[in-house]
Amino acid sequence: MQEIRFIEAKQLKEKPDFKNLGFGNYYTDYMFVMDYSEEKGWYDPRIEPYGPIMMEPASMVLHYGQTTFEGLKAYYGVDGDIRLFRPEKNMARLNESNKRVCIPEFDGDLVIEGIKKLVNIEKEWIPREEGTSLYIRPFVIATDVHVGVHPSKTYKFMVILSPVGAYYKEGINPVKIYVEDDYVRAVKGGLGYAKTAANYAASLKSQIVAEEKGYTQVLWLDGVERKYIEEVGTMNVMFVIDGEVVTPELNGSILAGITRMSTIELLRDAGYKVTERKVSIQEVFDAYENGKLDEAFGTGTAAVISPIGVLEWNGKKITINDGKIGPVSQKVYDTITGIQSGKLEDKFGWITKA
Amino acid sequence: MQEIRFIEAKQLKEKPDFKNLGFGNYYTDYMFVMDYSEEKGWYDPRIEPYGPIMMEPASMVLHYGQTTFEGLKAYYGVDGDIRLFRPEKNMARLNESNKRVCIPEFDGDLVIEGIKKLVNIEKEWIPREEGTSLYIRPFVIATDVHVGVHPSKTYKFMVILSPVGAYYKEGINPVKIYVEDDYVRAVKGGLGYAKTAANYAASLKSQIVAEEKGYTQVLWLDGVERKYIEEVGTMNVMFVIDGEVVTPELNGSILAGITRMSTIELLRDAGYKVTERKVSIQEVFDAYENGKLDEAFGTGTAAVISPIGVLEWNGKKITINDGKIGPVSQKVYDTITGIQSGKLEDKFGWITKA
Repeated sequence: MQEIRFIEAKQLKEKPDFKNLGFGNYYTDYMFVMDYSEEKGWYDPRIEPYGPIMMEPASMVLHYGQTTFEGLKAYYGVDGDIRLFRPEKNMARLNESNKRVCIPEFDGDLVIEGIKKLVNIEKEWIPREEGTSLYIRPFVIATDVHVGVHPSKTYKFMVILSPVGAYYKEGINPVKIYVEDDYVRAVKGGLGYAKTAANYAASLKSQIVAEEKGYTQVLWLDGVERKYIEEVGTMNVMFVIDGEVVTPELNGSILAGITRMSTIELLRDAGYKVTERKVSIQEVFDAYENGKLDEAFGTGTAAVISPIGVLEWNGKKITINDGKIGPVSQKVYDTITGIQSGKLEDKFGWITKA
Repeated sequence: MQEIRFIEAKQLKEKPDFKNLGFGNYYTDYMFVMDYSEEKGWYDPRIEPYGPIMMEPASMVLHYGQTTFEGLKAYYGVDGDIRLFRPEKNMARLNESNKRVCIPEFDGDLVIEGIKKLVNIEKEWIPREEGTSLYIRPFVIATDVHVGVHPSKTYKFMVILSPVGAYYKEGINPVKIYVEDDYVRAVKGGLGYAKTAANYAASLKSQIVAEEKGYTQVLWLDGVERKYIEEVGTMNVMFVIDGEVVTPELNGSILAGITRMSTIELLRDAGYKVTERKVSIQEVFDAYENGKLDEAFGTGTAAVISPIGVLEWNGKKITINDGKIGPVSQKVYDTITGIQSGKLEDKFGWITKA
C-alpha cells in the first residue's frame, strides 16, 4: 500500500459550538488528497491542511459534471473508540460510480487507511453528544483544463470532514412526503445508481416545489411508466404492508443505499419477511385504503431512518400510522444507531474502528 | 445596465500557433466575471485577467452539479468586422437552463455587452483562417460552501474564450454514428433540454464504448420506449427522407439547438418542407431499405453541420448517400458559415457585430 504523507497545518481553527452544528456548516483542519494522471495512476496520497484549491475556469468538472462522491460518518462509541460504519461498502460503491462516469478506479483499502488516519488526527472534531457525528465526504473531480466533451485524463480525490448535529432535535419526527409526477430524477440506462452530481442537480427543482407546498421531500417515480416508486429525496424507501417489508428493487436507476442494505439484513435476521421488487404508488395507496399500510420510512446515512407520516399523490393525502414512528422503523433505528455507538454488539461485523 | 469594470492584466500570454489550435486547448488573457448573492442579485460585472479561481473543497458545484453553460463563437468577417451568431438565443437558453436547476436568471443584454467588450479586448486572439473562430464559453457555477442538497445562495458567472481551429481539416467528412441501445442520455421530466453538466456526464461512457468500436459519436434514443431518436452525440440530428427534412421535435429531453433552429428557418425559407415530429430509428432504417433516405446530418455550434455517412443499429450498418455530403447538408453549411463570415447577406438578422 502507498505511504500516506502528512503535511502539518501552521494554525488550527477554533472549534464551533458542538451543540449547534447543523449539517455541513463546518469543516475540520485537515483533508485527505490524492491525484491521478495517466502515467502515474493514483499518486501522492496525503493528509494536508484543509483549504481552497486553485481551479482553472476551464476545469472539466465545472462544465461536464465528471465527479462522484460518498457520504459516511465517524462516531464516538460509548467505550471512547471511534467507529466507522461499513466503509468498505462506500469504497465499493464509489468505484461503481466511477466506472459509470469514466473515472479511474482506486484502491479502497488505501482510502479507508487515509480516512482512519485523518479521523484520528481530527478526533477533537468528533462531537460526542447523542446523535452527533463526524460526517466524512470522499469525492473525486475531473481536473483537465479542457472544454471538450471527453473523459478527463487527470483527477483529484479528496476527503473532507464536517462535524454534524443530531438529525432529529427532539426524537424522530415523521416527515411529509410529496409524490412527484412531473419531474424525473433518473431513468434506467442513465446515472441513477451512481452517486454523481447529475442526480442531485436533477432533484433540486422538484425539492423546492415540494418545500413550497409544505412538504419535506419528494418521492420519485420511475421515468418510464411513472408508476413505480424509486426513492424518497436522497433516501431509499421501505413500506410495511400487512406485516411484510417491501422496498423497490435495485433496478439501475436508484441508489444502492448502504443503510438500505443494512436494514434489509438486520430485519431478515430478526425474522421479518423483506422483499425487494417493483412497488407501484397505486399499491401503496391501495394498501392504505385496505388498512394494510402499517409503516413507511426512508433509509439513509444522514438520518438513518426517516419515518413517513404523510404522503400526497395526485391530490390525495394519507396519514400513515397516525403520523407516528412505527415498531419496524424504531427497531431499525435502534439497532443501527446502537451498533454505530457501540451500545449494541456488532453481530454483523459492520464496524471498522478508526 | 450595470457598468462593466475592467481590471488590466500585468502580463499578456504568448499567442499559440493559430494553424494548430485544435479545440479548447488555449485560453485568452481575460475573462468576464460577475457574482450573485441573495442580497445583491447579480453584481460587479467585470473583465479581469484569466486565471484560476480559489475554490473551497465543499463548494456545491463540485458535489451536486448545480451549473449551466453555453457555447458560441466570434468570427472575423471578410470585411474585418467581428461577428457573433445569434447570441441573444444563447442567453435565453442559458436562462432556461438556469431555471431548471434553480440558478437565478440574469440580464442577457448585460452579458452580451460583456462578451462584446471582452471579444474586442481579445481581438488579437481571434484566428482569421477559414473555418477558425474564437469559441466563447459562458457558464455559471454554484459557490456555496455547504455539503447539503439544496440550491446554492451564491453563484459565479464567467465567460472564457478559446481560439479554435477548423472543425474539419480537409472539407466536411461524414461521420460514423452508433445507435445507443443500452445507455440513456436524458428522459422527459429530467434535465435533457437544459445545457447542464448532468447530460454530459451521462454521455461519457457511451461515447467511449462507441469510439472503441470505431464510431465517432452515438445516436441517442428516448429513455422511455427506446424507439425514438433524440440527438447525435452533442448535436441535434436531421434526416432527409424522400425530399422532406424531418427532425425530432423538442420534447423536453433534447437540447433546443440554435444551429438546429437556424437550419429549420433557412431551409423553410429556401422552400424545403421541414417537419419537427417524433422520428423512430425504425423509420430511418425503413426509409433506407426503400431507397428514400437521402441524407442524415447533425447540427451544432462546433461543426455547424456534420453529415452522417454510416449508421449502425442492432448489428445492421447502413451507408447514407454513398458516405458523401448531400445537397441539403451542403446548402445549410454554406449558408450558415457564409452568414457567419459575412460572405452572404445577413437576411435573417442573425448577426450581432461585436
